[in-house]
Amino acid sequence: MSIGVGVVGFGYWGPNLARNLAVADGVDLVAVCDADPRAQARVQRLYPGVRTYAALDELLADGGVDAVVVATPVRSHADFALAALRSGRHVLVEKPMAETVAQAELMVEIAAAKGLTLMVDHTFVYTGAVARIAAMVQAGELGRLLYYDSVRINLGLFQSDVDVLWDLAVHDLSILDHLTGAMPVEVSCITHSHFPDTPANMAYLTLFYGDGLIAHTHVNWLSPVKIRQTVLGGERRMVVYDDIEPDEKLKIYDRGVSFSGAADLSAARRVDYRSGDVIIPALERGEALAGVVGAFRDAVTIGRPLSTDGRAGLRVVRILEAAGRSAKERGRAVPVRGD
Amino acid sequence: MSIGVGVVGFGYWGPNLARNLAVADGVDLVAVCDADPRAQARVQRLYPGVRTYAALDELLADGGVDAVVVATPVRSHADFALAALRSGRHVLVEKPMAETVAQAELMVEIAAAKGLTLMVDHTFVYTGAVARIAAMVQAGELGRLLYYDSVRINLGLFQSDVDVLWDLAVHDLSILDHLTGAMPVEVSCITHSHFPDTPANMAYLTLFYGDGLIAHTHVNWLSPVKIRQTVLGGERRMVVYDDIEPDEKLKIYDRGVSFSGAADLSAARRVDYRSGDVIIPALERGEALAGVVGAFRDAVTIGRPLSTDGRAGLRVVRILEAAGRSAKERGRAVPVRGD
Amino acid sequence: MSIGVGVVGFGYWGPNLARNLAVADGVDLVAVCDADPRAQARVQRLYPGVRTYAALDELLADGGVDAVVVATPVRSHADFALAALRSGRHVLVEKPMAETVAQAELMVEIAAAKGLTLMVDHTFVYTGAVARIAAMVQAGELGRLLYYDSVRINLGLFQSDVDVLWDLAVHDLSILDHLTGAMPVEVSCITHSHFPDTPANMAYLTLFYGDGLIAHTHVNWLSPVKIRQTVLGGERRMVVYDDIEPDEKLKIYDRGVSFSGAADLSAARRVDYRSGDVIIPALERGEALAGVVGAFRDAVTIGRPLSTDGRAGLRVVRILEAAGRSAKERGRAVPVRGD
Amino acid sequence: MSIGVGVVGFGYWGPNLARNLAVADGVDLVAVCDADPRAQARVQRLYPGVRTYAALDELLADGGVDAVVVATPVRSHADFALAALRSGRHVLVEKPMAETVAQAELMVEIAAAKGLTLMVDHTFVYTGAVARIAAMVQAGELGRLLYYDSVRINLGLFQSDVDVLWDLAVHDLSILDHLTGAMPVEVSCITHSHFPDTPANMAYLTLFYGDGLIAHTHVNWLSPVKIRQTVLGGERRMVVYDDIEPDEKLKIYDRGVSFSGAADLSAARRVDYRSGDVIIPALERGEALAGVVGAFRDAVTIGRPLSTDGRAGLRVVRILEAAGRSAKERGRAVPVRGD
Repeated sequence: MSIGVGVVGFGYWGPNLARNLAVADGVDLVAVCDADPRAQARVQRLYPGVRTYAALDELLADGGVDAVVVATPVRSHADFALAALRSGRHVLVEKPMAETVAQAELMVEIAAAKGLTLMVDHTFVYTGAVARIAAMVQAGELGRLLYYDSVRINLGLFQSDVDVLWDLAVHDLSILDHLTGAMPVEVSCITHSHFPDTPANMAYLTLFYGDGLIAHTHVNWLSPVKIRQTVLGGERRMVVYDDIEPDEKLKIYDRGVSFSGAADLSAARRVDYRSGDVIIPALERGEALAGVVGAFRDAVTIGRPLSTDGRAGLRVVRILEAAGRSAKERGRAVPVRGD
Repeated sequence: MSIGVGVVGFGYWGPNLARNLAVADGVDLVAVCDADPRAQARVQRLYPGVRTYAALDELLADGGVDAVVVATPVRSHADFALAALRSGRHVLVEKPMAETVAQAELMVEIAAAKGLTLMVDHTFVYTGAVARIAAMVQAGELGRLLYYDSVRINLGLFQSDVDVLWDLAVHDLSILDHLTGAMPVEVSCITHSHFPDTPANMAYLTLFYGDGLIAHTHVNWLSPVKIRQTVLGGERRMVVYDDIEPDEKLKIYDRGVSFSGAADLSAARRVDYRSGDVIIPALERGEALAGVVGAFRDAVTIGRPLSTDGRAGLRVVRILEAAGRSAKERGRAVPVRGD
Repeated sequence: MSIGVGVVGFGYWGPNLARNLAVADGVDLVAVCDADPRAQARVQRLYPGVRTYAALDELLADGGVDAVVVATPVRSHADFALAALRSGRHVLVEKPMAETVAQAELMVEIAAAKGLTLMVDHTFVYTGAVARIAAMVQAGELGRLLYYDSVRINLGLFQSDVDVLWDLAVHDLSILDHLTGAMPVEVSCITHSHFPDTPANMAYLTLFYGDGLIAHTHVNWLSPVKIRQTVLGGERRMVVYDDIEPDEKLKIYDRGVSFSGAADLSAARRVDYRSGDVIIPALERGEALAGVVGAFRDAVTIGRPLSTDGRAGLRVVRILEAAGRSAKERGRAVPVRGD
Repeated sequence: MSIGVGVVGFGYWGPNLARNLAVADGVDLVAVCDADPRAQARVQRLYPGVRTYAALDELLADGGVDAVVVATPVRSHADFALAALRSGRHVLVEKPMAETVAQAELMVEIAAAKGLTLMVDHTFVYTGAVARIAAMVQAGELGRLLYYDSVRINLGLFQSDVDVLWDLAVHDLSILDHLTGAMPVEVSCITHSHFPDTPANMAYLTLFYGDGLIAHTHVNWLSPVKIRQTVLGGERRMVVYDDIEPDEKLKIYDRGVSFSGAADLSAARRVDYRSGDVIIPALERGEALAGVVGAFRDAVTIGRPLSTDGRAGLRVVRILEAAGRSAKERGRAVPVRGD
């Protein structure tokens, strides 16, 4: 008893989702919709048995489609996802889930009202590396989290409908949402465009959490080298996560600084440095998108809770929107509106 | 006809300066002043012919001292440098040159009034790597500068009298001052302390220049790994500068993106990616401090202009002070007061 | 007017060849032969229009097959290639082309007698990195070649029908054949098996060329890390080739040592070290197998000479066979029989 | 009650030994002997209280000298060490301890007959990295040792009196002697000189041990890059030791292959791959030479056994001499004569 899935959008990311849908257990890739005839032709060549459509209406009219995967440009995420939800289909939507908080809120509401699954493809949450970090955080192995610092830069495709923040920083926000289970209280953001009439190609985003955690991500489409490096500092242990490394993505440092609170130590405080072993854990090897597809299937079929449901997607959009407000004020910290 | 030099402060950095002063041509290390008797004993063991003093007054009373090198904690830079200048001595002072703009301005004024050399030890300016970058910038090889992005983190010594900004970001500011020859118009800065009653151990500093250049540095005393990496993006070429690398510190990328200004290209703009060779230049190998000492000597003896004179030191302190103002406003961009 | 190609063997490497044959201009993938029904099913799913067969006879009976690609285990290379040649088909065979020199000689003879193309898939020759090194060697940019030194190790699949020498060292031999255009005069080889009744899992192979060039490769199936690193030393320049690097595979060092032949310099000879810039060239990005397929097509259709024809494959097998003789004598250098 | 030490030879390595002797507890640097007046002047400047001599006779006539450190070129090691031993002094000699087995045997005999300490400065044995590997081997953490593979190459100083084998491979031999506590049964060696009338500048040395362990080192003075990388494969764990890394020199891989001996598994054997975590241990940070000096002192004063006594030095010279015999036979494996 498989669920029939239709994919909307067969451009950059859609083919990857289709490939994973085609081989997953309990899921049937039954239809793909894309306005571009060449995209439809590619589908027919790769998946002869899959039906192709030019418009979403046609896909939604297909009775074999139980769930819809939205893999179009960001500007159409909300419209397509809402149409699918309203037609009674479960929805998996690419990140970021919408262009505005209002859209995302509506998507969450409709899904809840109809009792449908709404999932956001925050792919990194399903990687072996992030799953391992999350397990360590939950087990308290890192101690109190002090900072999360990420550099995510490369010579990147300039997007026409989103800036670098909505394209790249969204990854860090989705990882942080999963690791902390919390919302930042304030956000400071600086964005910069080096060319006229183009979306911001560089951004610095800082998040202030209530418990002293500070998170920062630096995203840039104009770097000569590709860097994907995150340092996560905890009071007990620290992690360096280099996503470019083919095998040794995580390094867990038994390293840190402790402070003695002794009041009589005036100027030079009692600082205790610790420098122990480093562990590079063996990680789960599976493709992250296979995990995304499996989680979506289990949410639809057996109601298993999702790490990246619509509410997670909404939280990320809230932060992105607040970042935009801060950027307009040249980096002044602004509050993030909570639920 | 050598100049006699006295060093004030024989703690962490003073011995390195003394070692270079002891072997440089045209310079005689004649005296060292440090209140700590063990420091004086170390001087006597290493340099039997050098006179040692416990207080600055004694050093300044030494007729063999033509110039004074101030290598004490930051809080005493201004007092000691001013006393030396007022006694008619040339001065080389550690970075940052003072704790406040007012102090730095006074130091510059007095030196000018007395016709004395005032130099700041912005050491990185005298490294082979920075000298090479500066030569490329001046020759126009990088084209218009778009961004400077630096990560300068490690498990560092918590300082008692300065925060991480004044300890580490000062390096990037001195490099930027040398590379651009310009002052930023505005500064946005976020600082963070993870422990009560300790100076900020993390900071994010962003500088906005008038010509579109944006500079950012991320400094952190709580990183499990030491990173010293700077990316400098120009329209024609880009440079990655990794100061941890023993040999291959600079990589010059013939890489970038060009934009066509064609007005009719609406959504998808004409973007042209270029990806050519990378060059790792052979760099000058000498110790940077030898260059510092040589530049100081030449300024004193033959009046050769300095890259890092008192005015350069003052510019850096101006930015640090503005950064502090921005940090108090949680990252709001504030203007940097010019000369 | 395309040539129809049939692939024999759809196990590990066959699918990669098929994928490139399916998209290349001037070539039609018309049939695949594999005794395993699951392999045939995979073919049918991926390429609905391609005919599948269980035995080579059936494939050779297919009139649409003009050329045959042999991608089976090494022990059947010669039989299958010879059958295809005798039936009048052009042949592209996996490396190493045969198990013995006698087999390889026969393959070359039959191909020549029938006027058919016989090509060996020495894939590395068609990579951007090796092509660039070859261009530099031919242009004299490296000067006289002094040494070639390669480490090619990983935690590897133990093969049932070949040892590590025939599995991995063959890559270095094919690269050397292409770079030097020469045969080594002597070979010294040490092989080692750490487990009973298993083929050698480590080998050290040294090749002595007539002009002073010495080449060495170290291959190992039991390394905890994957290393693919080759250093090529020339009198004028030296190259480090790291095939694990995703982008910066080649580093060209303007570095070396010159000797003065001055007879009067007795003990300490006049040695002159040179250490200039390093260049990381931008390389052709295309998949090497696309180049293999294109070269095969051009050889068949317009008679363009091949870098890796049957004679090149034979030369490599000659060296492997000589290496085996040396290994039996525990590393004694043995002559390589020439053509 | 310190022992008075005299150093013979103040060229490349002598100053490093002197520096460590000058600060070690229980040891007094009392005299240095070097024929070069400039070397003597350097000594006087660095250590005003140390006596300087131009010839060994003078040093040995100094009643304050209890022990002699020989840091001269290899050709004089035996003569100087023997003279010192015969005069009743304990001796610490640079590696390799002598030019011939006969010399080394005589040194060991005389030292034993006189009851004097004879130590060889196999420096690497006293590094934190090698000490940690040795501890793991002894504790059985690596399981049965399968192979030791080392690459030790750089753009090196051509030595006038030794070839690259006696200059660089000696390090691997001393490490192997310490790790295995065993002698190889046979040795195969290939050496190569690229310039007329110069010692070999490249060598490949393979050692066969009785228990199946195979060791290999590749040394080269003509490499454009400096590599110091050793892979040590054990049945239970494997170690990669990169001596260029400033901090993370060792990586311990919980990785390997197990073989099932099941006789019924014919062609494809039951191979079991294991790929667990990697550990980068925190290592002792002290300078290796401080350990050398401390071990020498403890051997002289309290008779503590040495890891690198004269017999260890002799074993290393035996292997080097056997390597030379094999090299003359172009790599044929030759037996190593035991004690």
